[in-house]
Amino acid sequence: MDDETRARTALLRSSSDAAARVFGTILTRSPISRIEVARRTGLSQAAVTKAVAPLVAAGLVDDSLEATPTGLPGRPVSPVAVVPEALVVAGVKVNADELVGVVTDLTDRVVAAERVPLASAEPAAVIDAIAGLCAHLQTAIGRLGSRMARVGVAVSGDVDTASGVVRDSVLMGWRDVGLGAALSARLSQEVLVENDVRALTIGEHWFGVGLGTASFAIVTIGRGIGSGLHLNGEVVAGAYGVAGEIGHLPLAAPDRLCACGRRGCVEAVAATGAIVEAVSAAHGRPVPIEEAVALGRAGDPAAVAVFAEAGRVIGAAIASLVNLVGPELVIIGGEGVAAIDLLEGALRTSYAEHAFGSAGRCRIEVRPHTFEDWARGAAASAIRSLLV
Amino acid sequence: MDDETRARTALLRSSSDAAARVFGTILTRSPISRIEVARRTGLSQAAVTKAVAPLVAAGLVDDSLEATPTGLPGRPVSPVAVVPEALVVAGVKVNADELVGVVTDLTDRVVAAERVPLASAEPAAVIDAIAGLCAHLQTAIGRLGSRMARVGVAVSGDVDTASGVVRDSVLMGWRDVGLGAALSARLSQEVLVENDVRALTIGEHWFGVGLGTASFAIVTIGRGIGSGLHLNGEVVAGAYGVAGEIGHLPLAAPDRLCACGRRGCVEAVAATGAIVEAVSAAHGRPVPIEEAVALGRAGDPAAVAVFAEAGRVIGAAIASLVNLVGPELVIIGGEGVAAIDLLEGALRTSYAEHAFGSAGRCRIEVRPHTFEDWARGAAASAIRSLLV
Repeated sequence: MDDETRARTALLRSSSDAAARVFGTILTRSPISRIEVARRTGLSQAAVTKAVAPLVAAGLVDDSLEATPTGLPGRPVSPVAVVPEALVVAGVKVNADELVGVVTDLTDRVVAAERVPLASAEPAAVIDAIAGLCAHLQTAIGRLGSRMARVGVAVSGDVDTASGVVRDSVLMGWRDVGLGAALSARLSQEVLVENDVRALTIGEHWFGVGLGTASFAIVTIGRGIGSGLHLNGEVVAGAYGVAGEIGHLPLAAPDRLCACGRRGCVEAVAATGAIVEAVSAAHGRPVPIEEAVALGRAGDPAAVAVFAEAGRVIGAAIASLVNLVGPELVIIGGEGVAAIDLLEGALRTSYAEHAFGSAGRCRIEVRPHTFEDWARGAAASAIRSLLV
Repeated sequence: MDDETRARTALLRSSSDAAARVFGTILTRSPISRIEVARRTGLSQAAVTKAVAPLVAAGLVDDSLEATPTGLPGRPVSPVAVVPEALVVAGVKVNADELVGVVTDLTDRVVAAERVPLASAEPAAVIDAIAGLCAHLQTAIGRLGSRMARVGVAVSGDVDTASGVVRDSVLMGWRDVGLGAALSARLSQEVLVENDVRALTIGEHWFGVGLGTASFAIVTIGRGIGSGLHLNGEVVAGAYGVAGEIGHLPLAAPDRLCACGRRGCVEAVAATGAIVEAVSAAHGRPVPIEEAVALGRAGDPAAVAVFAEAGRVIGAAIASLVNLVGPELVIIGGEGVAAIDLLEGALRTSYAEHAFGSAGRCRIEVRPHTFEDWARGAAASAIRSLLV
């Protein structure tokens, strides 16, 4: 981290609430006029001008852009814009068998990316691997390496972002792992640890669908089933650090035992592991997920029924979410989207059966998030944490 | 409405976003120093002072209070406070068989209250009755009658607050009733129509538990089962006007048909009507709810089992809400709380079985809301609507 980077992060850290809102607005909506910043933040134009000045002086915001004609009488409006490479951040998505890392600029644009396999999911081994990946990424971006302001790490499960502790991750087999502190010490860098689906939601909120949508949910399907919610201008974090656990709504029959130990969870029927188990049981031999999908597509009745049941339960879960919080849009993502053709019919039927009244006008869109998108979510969380 | 009232409502209606936030903060936290208003709104002290001046001039805010010693060196801090009776509002809760009306001051304190039976739930008859009730309340408050700024009406079901249309109310048997427009014309007054549970949540947010709690949900049980959510600083309204439909999560068996026409809804097992039906079926004769409760308390096995099943499904519904949005607190209210002794054991067991990880640290409190509390919620919605 060079002196300029240190000065920029210090400026952001010491920002007033108003100044942070101004920078957040410029960050996500560049180029933008000061008048529009004032309108969106509810601040006076004088307060916006006052907040912008030190950001320009520090090189985080550019106010030398060409004035754009507004088509209205009077002075043309001079927009301001974020300087994307004033700072960069790293984002790492931790999976049980690999790490996906990116470096992005302040607008969440990827400037470098890398995937590395994990030999072990033991915390010590994963911490080593993340440290190695970050060092490698930092070298890969050359002169931008000195601009690295923060590292964001996304992990599935119950993550306490304030303390950097992964309290419980079934996918990793972790309990109370102090990932943030360990990595901070190793990297001599501030590290933010976030639940992976919440990180994805933060990324969509700041740099994706959230820019044009007042409220949305992301539902991710695959090995785990989770969700992220964006309501009333913010991602829902949960008063005790947990929210979005759509995979553990008790919508399945009580005789379906979930990997979490509870009964009747959505994941007990619709997670990849549950699908594999059910198709294997029907065929009396271990059937890997790739073959289960192939069987489903070939019309094998057992596989078709298993995927349809998974789709039905996921549809009921999305209807439950929609009935409770009434979002404008639900995006279905996650690696399970690769088999969406086997799920979608039953999913949409069940959603339509259970969505209540006008809440059912919520659009359901399927979008295959790549693993790189998850890492970008981790980077977006790191960018956001520079301001709050 | 006298000239002063007209001037005050016009000032609030024309407020900037910043001025509205300043007044909202003073309204709910009087007496409060300007410094504290600035801290809570994220505005500069200069902006707060500028916003307060016209409110003082219009008689909505009092700045002549005694300065309170802060215990710190320097000038004592002069607080400002809302003038409670600067404006009053009416709040009406519409039930199928009666209206409950209150008049409150700007701090949601009740200055008059009245209940009137409804001979018919037909829209025309209900509109007549609401108009009569409001006229009566206005007379009852004497000189304050000229200070009446708005009427809030709370109705169960799918309510489009923007247009004042009750789109669908199973409890009232209404579809697309233009209640707001009809009442506005009759009363020569602005009328706000709100979903009843959302109104109750707005009341708790502005004038109740919300002042000390960052996020909470209200779950109401009884003839209908609904919920209101307060997250990220605001009540969740639903992008399409519907949210909080916890009574229609598909957590019961699919053979349980709900009054809404869907299958497996929470209400199909746990609403008063469903409980009455199940106990009646077990005893082979019509058993009214009062007798079903008495039978349950006397240990009648059928009644005990019916209430326990209702409690179990309500507990699973609350766990679903908690897993999805992770509130700090859930308040159980509604007239069904009168039989909470028959529900609570199964409810808390089922909640504990399905609440996920740290989200389960959410406190569950039972609080009997009176019908007057619902009317106060309608009044609180009207107060809030003066500002937004």
